[in-house]
Amino acid sequence: MLSGLSFINGQWQSNSDDCFYAINAIDHSQMQPQFINCSKELLDEACLQAKAAFIEYRQTTPLQRADFLNEIAHQLALAEPLLLERTTVETGLPTGRIQGELARTINQLRLFATNLIKQPVFMAHDFALPERTPLARPDLKMSQLPLGPVAVFGASNFPLAFSTAGGDTASALAAGCTVVFKAHVAHPGTCEIVSRAIEKAISICGMPCGVFSLLQSKSYEISHSLVKHVAIKAVGFTGSYRVGMALLDSIKTRNEPIPFYGELGAINPQIILPNFIAQNSSGLAQEFVTSMAMGAGQFCTNPGVWLVNKEEAAEFKAKLIPLIESSAAQTMLTPGILNAYAQGCQRLAEHAEVVASGLVDDKKASVYLFTTSADQFLSNQALHEEVFGPASLMVTYKDLAEVASIIDELEGQLTASIHGSLEVIEQHKGLVEALSFKVGRLIFNQMPTGVEVCDAMMHGGPFPCSTDVRSTSVGSFAIERFLRPICYQNQP
Amino acid sequence: MLSGLSFINGQWQSNSDDCFYAINAIDHSQMQPQFINCSKELLDEACLQAKAAFIEYRQTTPLQRADFLNEIAHQLALAEPLLLERTTVETGLPTGRIQGELARTINQLRLFATNLIKQPVFMAHDFALPERTPLARPDLKMSQLPLGPVAVFGASNFPLAFSTAGGDTASALAAGCTVVFKAHVAHPGTCEIVSRAIEKAISICGMPCGVFSLLQSKSYEISHSLVKHVAIKAVGFTGSYRVGMALLDSIKTRNEPIPFYGELGAINPQIILPNFIAQNSSGLAQEFVTSMAMGAGQFCTNPGVWLVNKEEAAEFKAKLIPLIESSAAQTMLTPGILNAYAQGCQRLAEHAEVVASGLVDDKKASVYLFTTSADQFLSNQALHEEVFGPASLMVTYKDLAEVASIIDELEGQLTASIHGSLEVIEQHKGLVEALSFKVGRLIFNQMPTGVEVCDAMMHGGPFPCSTDVRSTSVGSFAIERFLRPICYQNQP
Repeated sequence: MLSGLSFINGQWQSNSDDCFYAINAIDHSQMQPQFINCSKELLDEACLQAKAAFIEYRQTTPLQRADFLNEIAHQLALAEPLLLERTTVETGLPTGRIQGELARTINQLRLFATNLIKQPVFMAHDFALPERTPLARPDLKMSQLPLGPVAVFGASNFPLAFSTAGGDTASALAAGCTVVFKAHVAHPGTCEIVSRAIEKAISICGMPCGVFSLLQSKSYEISHSLVKHVAIKAVGFTGSYRVGMALLDSIKTRNEPIPFYGELGAINPQIILPNFIAQNSSGLAQEFVTSMAMGAGQFCTNPGVWLVNKEEAAEFKAKLIPLIESSAAQTMLTPGILNAYAQGCQRLAEHAEVVASGLVDDKKASVYLFTTSADQFLSNQALHEEVFGPASLMVTYKDLAEVASIIDELEGQLTASIHGSLEVIEQHKGLVEALSFKVGRLIFNQMPTGVEVCDAMMHGGPFPCSTDVRSTSVGSFAIERFLRPICYQNQP
Repeated sequence: MLSGLSFINGQWQSNSDDCFYAINAIDHSQMQPQFINCSKELLDEACLQAKAAFIEYRQTTPLQRADFLNEIAHQLALAEPLLLERTTVETGLPTGRIQGELARTINQLRLFATNLIKQPVFMAHDFALPERTPLARPDLKMSQLPLGPVAVFGASNFPLAFSTAGGDTASALAAGCTVVFKAHVAHPGTCEIVSRAIEKAISICGMPCGVFSLLQSKSYEISHSLVKHVAIKAVGFTGSYRVGMALLDSIKTRNEPIPFYGELGAINPQIILPNFIAQNSSGLAQEFVTSMAMGAGQFCTNPGVWLVNKEEAAEFKAKLIPLIESSAAQTMLTPGILNAYAQGCQRLAEHAEVVASGLVDDKKASVYLFTTSADQFLSNQALHEEVFGPASLMVTYKDLAEVASIIDELEGQLTASIHGSLEVIEQHKGLVEALSFKVGRLIFNQMPTGVEVCDAMMHGGPFPCSTDVRSTSVGSFAIERFLRPICYQNQP
């Protein structure tokens, strides 16, 4: 059923015999079929077709694009059985999660479709003032245009919602941009299934063939050639700091600067203010452990660092330990990620103390909670690095001056949460204000996992959690990534 | 009266004896006093004070910032006599122009102040849906935060409106960002006068000292150190392609990517559709010559290239020649700009034919009109380069296929105008649509000079006319350059 080919200009193509295989996340075996690494020539064709298709696609009406997005959503829903079969094995994510993520991906497409229908044609209109002195004012209207062909990279940890027809693709298509999508090697079959859904929607809606391409490749060179391609006018990426910064280096070699929307991960600090744990230590412990272990901790909003009052740490740990020790080991997305998680835990174990660890199973990740003091945390940069997986670090503070110092030293984060009574939060408004400048989303008394797709969502934040703090990768506002203003003066 | 010093942290400072002088634009003589090149240490202090002041300034209310902007506007109005005396000599711009530009600068500050008062606190609000299944929705509100300290570079051609208290400074201060301003060496005295107006406003409004700094320096190194400084979170620049791209290269060496809003110039093509000249050849010729010669052609929206139907060119030229030949020579902003203009005209003369030239005067720029064929224009990149000054190139086309080819080959432009009867414009919608993707502002039957400060203005455009097509340097929307979204979840 799967071809293992790239989808370029409406054709499933390959022109090489260089190939790779998807890996079964559960038993680490090779999966059939083979996927052919797309050549530099095919990449070039995809970009040029995206450029050619852009001329037609940018002239579609918002209603036509809404129909197209809704049709992709419909075709995705029809593909659910195929996805449940393939994606669960490629990613090791359970059926319920894939069902939920598919629903989210479908809703995301529909949200952009709905927004397209209700968007105003002009963002601003200054009417002509022909009698004004000393100078008349012309009629001026501000509208928006799509940027052009966009390169989108799939993320390993959201094989649907941040992948082939995920947020970046949906918002780019909604904006009127064409998309060249580079599949993630961790779920190439999923990418093909979703691309076939898009292919059907292209055909049903009569969209130009080059509006969407899928590139399959295990070669980093293809990714770098893609972001350097002169036809590409913006790049959407969700992944690791290392890969994101390498792509940014390639983008910097371009003569034409283009926006790079890289979401590079975070440690999402959780600050528990004094005298809060005692109020609800069991509930809080349950919330924290559920959030840290959810999806094997493979969310970009995973709560990696918890700031806890030293005097309350023992009480909190007492509630946490049994929950962690009974937590099941979970399959991770790829053998490489499982291995990196093991190394990350080892690094934390070298620099911090283990509080508790969960159940152990072959080829699975165990939950880990570490602890260290605020002093240690402040002086040891190794403790600030994200460990991708179900591990968290509890940092115990002596006083709120230490919390303020930690906030001051924090790098940019996707999210942070403040946990405390409303009275204590109100007393420490300064901390909250300082924290807001370090994050994209500031949360009160809730966990950061769970990113709602809605108008008010900001999923992004100050560097290094993202490379463009002015934009979000989730929610209605994400379409702004791929639009730019234009002013029409004295338009007939 | 002028100190020649830099203004850092509320003090007029220098710690070197390395100096430069402003040059009288009219007679090219040195002007008093000497200006001291600010040292790397003072630059560092300015950036660190901007960072420290940001913590206080970002917490001001929109109303407080509006008062501050209005006070700067008021102080600027009081400084008018000083500016008329100094700026006219530093820039060679006539009194009427400086008066007009001052009024524009004051209005710009007041526009941002007015917008601040009426802006909503939240851009979007998704209310909590606690009963929603399978997952409750938390309360989510989107708001905006300022980016941090901003570096702003003054432009030589707008000593007030795109300089010390110009658009970038006004929009950054409105956003809640602090500003480190690098004066342009072509009008350092003007920069000091305006900075003293800002100094008074800081004191009257009780703003933190580091909210605004002025750096005087003739050294490129200071500019490059400024954009590389770790405290700086965005850069606003208006100037030449060469200098802008050099600054971009420095910005690329940063680990943290930051937005670079560089406006780098344009040739602002004017497309006259067939059968339009005959309808109003005298009026059109007058409009074109007035626009090209206005302010000695030193506007970024100067109409540099005119596309004219070959068959109508003779008629148009007949009307243009007497107007050009009687055009006065004008003082340019600096001897260097005058020299570059002479070289630019020489380059055009080598690659195109002179149609007419204006009156000649010592140390002044004469108006020049050149002509070439569409063929030649398409094959000769030298003809696409901006010549900063009162020179334009008339490109004659055989048919609209040639016009379409030229549009296709155009680099990104701040503006373009379509001149034609409404019927002919309607017939060639495809050309208009294609042109819209090359420009920031698309104009119908009007000249591009004159950039209204209003809600609907877009002053910017695709690279290379700007380095960030998603933003404008003029108008209400310019504040977005210095803001970023934040989401508050479950905020008490």
